[in-house]
Amino acid sequence: MLTLGALAEELGVTLRGDPGQAITGMATLASAGPQQVSFLANRRYLPQLRHTRAAAVILRPDMAAECPVASLEASDPYLAFARASALFITAPRAESGVHPSAVVAADAEVHPTASIGPLAVIGARARIGAGVVIGAHCHVGARCVIGEGSQLHPAVVLYHDVKLGKRCTVHSQAVLGADGFGFAPGRGGWEKIHQLGGVTLGDGVEVGACTTIDRGALEDTVLEDGVIVDNLVQIAHNCHIGKNTAIAGCTGLAGSTIIGANCTLAGGVGVVGHVEICDNVHITGMTMVTRSITEPGSYSSGTPMSDTRDWKRNAVRFAQLDRIQKRLAALEKSHKS
Amino acid sequence: MLTLGALAEELGVTLRGDPGQAITGMATLASAGPQQVSFLANRRYLPQLRHTRAAAVILRPDMAAECPVASLEASDPYLAFARASALFITAPRAESGVHPSAVVAADAEVHPTASIGPLAVIGARARIGAGVVIGAHCHVGARCVIGEGSQLHPAVVLYHDVKLGKRCTVHSQAVLGADGFGFAPGRGGWEKIHQLGGVTLGDGVEVGACTTIDRGALEDTVLEDGVIVDNLVQIAHNCHIGKNTAIAGCTGLAGSTIIGANCTLAGGVGVVGHVEICDNVHITGMTMVTRSITEPGSYSSGTPMSDTRDWKRNAVRFAQLDRIQKRLAALEKSHKS
Amino acid sequence: MLTLGALAEELGVTLRGDPGQAITGMATLASAGPQQVSFLANRRYLPQLRHTRAAAVILRPDMAAECPVASLEASDPYLAFARASALFITAPRAESGVHPSAVVAADAEVHPTASIGPLAVIGARARIGAGVVIGAHCHVGARCVIGEGSQLHPAVVLYHDVKLGKRCTVHSQAVLGADGFGFAPGRGGWEKIHQLGGVTLGDGVEVGACTTIDRGALEDTVLEDGVIVDNLVQIAHNCHIGKNTAIAGCTGLAGSTIIGANCTLAGGVGVVGHVEICDNVHITGMTMVTRSITEPGSYSSGTPMSDTRDWKRNAVRFAQLDRIQKRLAALEKSHKS
Repeated sequence: MLTLGALAEELGVTLRGDPGQAITGMATLASAGPQQVSFLANRRYLPQLRHTRAAAVILRPDMAAECPVASLEASDPYLAFARASALFITAPRAESGVHPSAVVAADAEVHPTASIGPLAVIGARARIGAGVVIGAHCHVGARCVIGEGSQLHPAVVLYHDVKLGKRCTVHSQAVLGADGFGFAPGRGGWEKIHQLGGVTLGDGVEVGACTTIDRGALEDTVLEDGVIVDNLVQIAHNCHIGKNTAIAGCTGLAGSTIIGANCTLAGGVGVVGHVEICDNVHITGMTMVTRSITEPGSYSSGTPMSDTRDWKRNAVRFAQLDRIQKRLAALEKSHKS
Repeated sequence: MLTLGALAEELGVTLRGDPGQAITGMATLASAGPQQVSFLANRRYLPQLRHTRAAAVILRPDMAAECPVASLEASDPYLAFARASALFITAPRAESGVHPSAVVAADAEVHPTASIGPLAVIGARARIGAGVVIGAHCHVGARCVIGEGSQLHPAVVLYHDVKLGKRCTVHSQAVLGADGFGFAPGRGGWEKIHQLGGVTLGDGVEVGACTTIDRGALEDTVLEDGVIVDNLVQIAHNCHIGKNTAIAGCTGLAGSTIIGANCTLAGGVGVVGHVEICDNVHITGMTMVTRSITEPGSYSSGTPMSDTRDWKRNAVRFAQLDRIQKRLAALEKSHKS
Repeated sequence: MLTLGALAEELGVTLRGDPGQAITGMATLASAGPQQVSFLANRRYLPQLRHTRAAAVILRPDMAAECPVASLEASDPYLAFARASALFITAPRAESGVHPSAVVAADAEVHPTASIGPLAVIGARARIGAGVVIGAHCHVGARCVIGEGSQLHPAVVLYHDVKLGKRCTVHSQAVLGADGFGFAPGRGGWEKIHQLGGVTLGDGVEVGACTTIDRGALEDTVLEDGVIVDNLVQIAHNCHIGKNTAIAGCTGLAGSTIIGANCTLAGGVGVVGHVEICDNVHITGMTMVTRSITEPGSYSSGTPMSDTRDWKRNAVRFAQLDRIQKRLAALEKSHKS
């Protein structure tokens, strides 16, 4: 049983309150009970702080005066919350060893501390590192390499020649290494360009559920260390994503897109192929990126939401915009003359 | 063998025609043969009614005069069609019992009338209710609860602590309970916020293929009774979707979005995080919802499609809109003066 | 071991260089080593040609003079590259026969030259043709028919009554034949319209990873010969896609959409239901198609990306566009009078 004192020590924060108080989990300010810890990272939730019944609240020192219960004072409460969350993980732990129902190629190398779940398939000459967890129903293709401490949740598919660094997490139904969408127009229809590259993920990469990362046409599609990708994201062949870049759900990157380090792409963004985005760029939700970006900053496209009737009236005018501008220019000219 | 008379009785509608006519299935007005039933719910298809060779047509009483074959008169033909469709289901029925190739935890509770398909995995302490059908290759995580009469089609993944009500349907490759996309920026990169909540679905919820519903950070992500969700939809952590709301394909909801009851979101909609949409709201396709909606009604964003050359001319002007407005204001001012 | 001479012969192109040179694979101009072949299809990469260390480069005859190494002269170098790629496939070959861990219905017909991977499930009365490859963890529903030479990569789900022609390729986690999103509003909520049709794919169709193609309500959803579909695409019930049409990632087609032959839909496109697009139409990325298209050509919608502050200023004006137009019209009128 964790105590408040032990938690404060673990997080390296200052506790004001009873160090012997038992803590069983975490909850929101509004719902936390007397053995749960909560956190306040955004002033917007101050009203909830005043009524919380949590055992303790992680917050900034300058908010402690307003906290009706014990406080855990942290200079970055959100980060302290992230670290506290690791102490209360509810997911069951996988046991080391190969489940008897798994199908493992004779020449695959599986580290004895790795866990291969029920009905998983491990292909020829794959190498599974120490402490790796391969969930149920996963498919690890031939010659894949999975670095120490990585986890594939159930039903992930890796095609052949996919390499994951250390401490990567891949969520269910993600597909790494499917063929890039490469076809040449031939006389009788499309002719397939066989995709001869692979996929390489650095260390600490996280890939969301139902996300697809295609193999490269000739070289690998690459996600560098610390890249985090949400659900239902499409990363096409030959993309290269720089360190610590974050990509939110439903975003699609066309082929050969290069994205720098420390970028954040919000949800539903689309990036056309063969463009390059420099480091430290933020793209707002549903933006259509049709050209390279060479300056750090925030970029957007789209139109604001409104009542559908109003929208229709304005949208019709969008299709007249060039004419509107020309009419305006004509008026200006005639006015001056 | 179903007869037209039995069908009319089953649907509670008035038959004009031979009650002894054998019926083997349903088809469109244009393709139905003499033992198939069709329906007309939209006047647009009246020309097809005149030439139909169906055994009978479900339609409104005021259209019966134009029907060249037997008619099944219903005040709501579309609803009668929905009910008739249930009589001609072509999907094979699952047999009760656990397939010998399934891997079921010793302490999972599986109701004797439930069906566990080939190569499914049922985790520790999961509870599978009466008449539940778990398809082939499904993964039901630890402590999941699946209510009476629910069905998981093949290859659905439920992580741990996912709860489904009664009569839910989840389509293939859907993922319920993957980690929400929660990370705190740390000194060396993103630090993961472990997602301690679960996912709760009410009764009669339908979830489409390849749709992802993430577990909550601290509390459950919730879909209330009767919510229907299409394919490839992303529902992020901590979302709460009200009763009977319908969400069409390729839509994405960012974290902590609250949507009321009886809403309809068309395809490709994106909703930014932490907003609230009231009951009875309709969002048209591909709309970008960037703020809360407090009034029922229909909302839209986007621009109309046109020929690409015209579009380019107008799109360029979009980026000058503020300047155009200012030029117009200046002209107005100088005109008045 | 392939030689340059044999490669030239295989491709039917003219070699300038040593026919005895051994070739082990393909690579980009920049990274190819002395036993690898590269290609140049786009003048943009001419600078790389000058420094390439490839064994040989596939290029147009008029570029051969600038090639510092051996050249393979082709009138269509991109097509020649596609054909060359087939000679260097890195994917492991599947062996004929049924893996002992697969679960195959007693009355399914599996051709002796077909390959059924580990832990695959083949349903009742399914028919698997000559040379077909069914990957690990695939689910082939009852009465499905898979034509000669087709391949399902791991973890594809076909519901019942799905028909694939010859030489089709379906990538992992794709779902063919899930229920179309059909519901009638009833008194107590949505009532399901059971989807009685199936899915039919012609010959040579390719379907991307995590793509969903729903079964038709009454008739089949149809993709004609040579259609190619990228990842994370939603094709709703009753759609009909014409021959050789290409659909890029993250695109969604609503129900009953009809698309002609030889169309190309870029990524992130959305097409509203019940519209018809004629042959030879190109739709640019993220376009919202809300009406039928009856003339071949290129179509677009959306707004250009800009710096977020500029975008906000202009986006606000979008919501005033109709008023701006009216103000302009008033000025014009008063100016003339």
